[in-house]
Amino acid sequence: MFVSLKLILAMDEFALIEHFFKIPAIQRADVVYGIGDDAACLTVSSNHQLFVSTDTLVAEVHFLSSWDAYDIAWRAVMVNVSDMAAMAVYPCWISLALTLPYYDEHWLNRFAKGLHAALHQFNIALIGGDTTRGPLSITLTIHGTAPIGVAIPRSGARIGDTIWVSGDLGGAAQAVAFFKQNNENVSEPILLDKLKRPCPRLDLLPFLRLYASAAIDISDGLGADLNHLCQRSSVGACITSKAIPIHPLVKQYQGLNAIDFAINGGDDYELCFTTSIKNTRLFMDALAQTQHRCYPIGVIEKKSGLRILNEQLEINELIIHGYCHF
Amino acid sequence: MFVSLKLILAMDEFALIEHFFKIPAIQRADVVYGIGDDAACLTVSSNHQLFVSTDTLVAEVHFLSSWDAYDIAWRAVMVNVSDMAAMAVYPCWISLALTLPYYDEHWLNRFAKGLHAALHQFNIALIGGDTTRGPLSITLTIHGTAPIGVAIPRSGARIGDTIWVSGDLGGAAQAVAFFKQNNENVSEPILLDKLKRPCPRLDLLPFLRLYASAAIDISDGLGADLNHLCQRSSVGACITSKAIPIHPLVKQYQGLNAIDFAINGGDDYELCFTTSIKNTRLFMDALAQTQHRCYPIGVIEKKSGLRILNEQLEINELIIHGYCHF
Repeated sequence: MFVSLKLILAMDEFALIEHFFKIPAIQRADVVYGIGDDAACLTVSSNHQLFVSTDTLVAEVHFLSSWDAYDIAWRAVMVNVSDMAAMAVYPCWISLALTLPYYDEHWLNRFAKGLHAALHQFNIALIGGDTTRGPLSITLTIHGTAPIGVAIPRSGARIGDTIWVSGDLGGAAQAVAFFKQNNENVSEPILLDKLKRPCPRLDLLPFLRLYASAAIDISDGLGADLNHLCQRSSVGACITSKAIPIHPLVKQYQGLNAIDFAINGGDDYELCFTTSIKNTRLFMDALAQTQHRCYPIGVIEKKSGLRILNEQLEINELIIHGYCHF
Repeated sequence: MFVSLKLILAMDEFALIEHFFKIPAIQRADVVYGIGDDAACLTVSSNHQLFVSTDTLVAEVHFLSSWDAYDIAWRAVMVNVSDMAAMAVYPCWISLALTLPYYDEHWLNRFAKGLHAALHQFNIALIGGDTTRGPLSITLTIHGTAPIGVAIPRSGARIGDTIWVSGDLGGAAQAVAFFKQNNENVSEPILLDKLKRPCPRLDLLPFLRLYASAAIDISDGLGADLNHLCQRSSVGACITSKAIPIHPLVKQYQGLNAIDFAINGGDDYELCFTTSIKNTRLFMDALAQTQHRCYPIGVIEKKSGLRILNEQLEINELIIHGYCHF
């Protein structure tokens, strides 16, 4: 989804492009919110809302064309499913726009198998799309519906809310680092799976709906995505360095640099969400009765921007730098 | 939208790709119809349906990157709006996936202007999307809603129905021919507008809803698209050569070959639709009271396949050949 201009200027001139589309040509009463959240929210009946999100994956940018097409399809679906998870909405339907440089039956068979397997996992119907000849890229548009009022937007974080992440961070970025070093065969299939087979956290939806005030998925990196959430909520945040769950293999490979991978590495597709002062204890109690683990990493503050409490108990401004997939 | 395999085998191995996605991984009760029509039809409430269609435009395939970006955006929107028109559904929302090779402020300004102007024309809200770096392409996913029962699918044509087209054909293909001859500056802005500024026929929606039994938009060519309509309706058709409205400039430039441009040339985005025996006269009477012109070109028959009555009053099988944009 389109992200905010302010952060972008610090990140990547390319993301700035989205600025050009922010001035709405048309305001419609049935658009509850459009550009700026994980998915657009649209009124479709007196008691239900429709959620729509689009993600494009370009070869050599978001994946390598040398990958098994099964994994490419899987990743494309899951990246989109994660946008629905971030809204606490169950996905229903997906449309596929596939651009391919040439006809390759083996590739297509693998891609279709991966696509169908991924859709099957979450009971999502493929409803149509378009196939064109051109440089390899995949655009999926995913749809979900929910009763009015149950979805969790980015904009609901309030001062004093606890900030949570749903799992270990940095693993996918470590896998990307291996690829960049031509170190593909490093014996860490766990990390490669983090990158190629992300698991969007639909399993947390019942908790989000009951306890969360705001949520976003971590695709660009914890720092960048928490910043999106704070900007949409008109708040700031302070997170605690040692509370951030870092993937153990990232610690092993990166040592002191591991925290940077956890904060600025993208592609993990865990969730970052907030719980109100009232709900935090209720959420912890509910969580304790399950196998799920979530990690409280900080608190929402009035002052805009992101800060981090380091191991020396100093509070510094959190430096966010752009995350490039490949 | 994905088209039928049978026709594809006669057209373009590339379109065959869609075969791989036809085996549904998931059947959902809320999918009224998915792959195979101009748009998917989905149940969103007890009295409304959602319609979704996706089209990708790739540079040098569907447009030339040398074009004014205003025109590229305009065309991208209108191609998608036409899919809604073909269902007799008013479009509401669109999401944009834009892939660009590099940051070009002038290009983006022009593209955004064209996009907003096109969306403004039909009261469509831009609800989100994704911007990525890569070879230039544009994927739009368009959404519309309609009360249950008012949309016109491809599948409703019945034996004896009259076949109509909504306007002159072949003009856009003639413009493509000029481009292929590097004849861009030929003094026929009318034809270039046919290609660059298609006008989807939303103006005909009230008539379609009242009188049409089946409808499709003419993007791949009259022959190919009528064939899609007939296959979805399990019928065939016979059309009359001299009844087909050919753009006068195509006649001028192509002479005897003009009929081939009208039948096999794509990109016109007129509508092809059918009216039942009972409704045909009512439709003609209603049309006569307006400025609209539509052209009866043939009749739906039991025998599958397409036939054409030529000027010598011979009936031959209609030869469809694939249409390549550029």
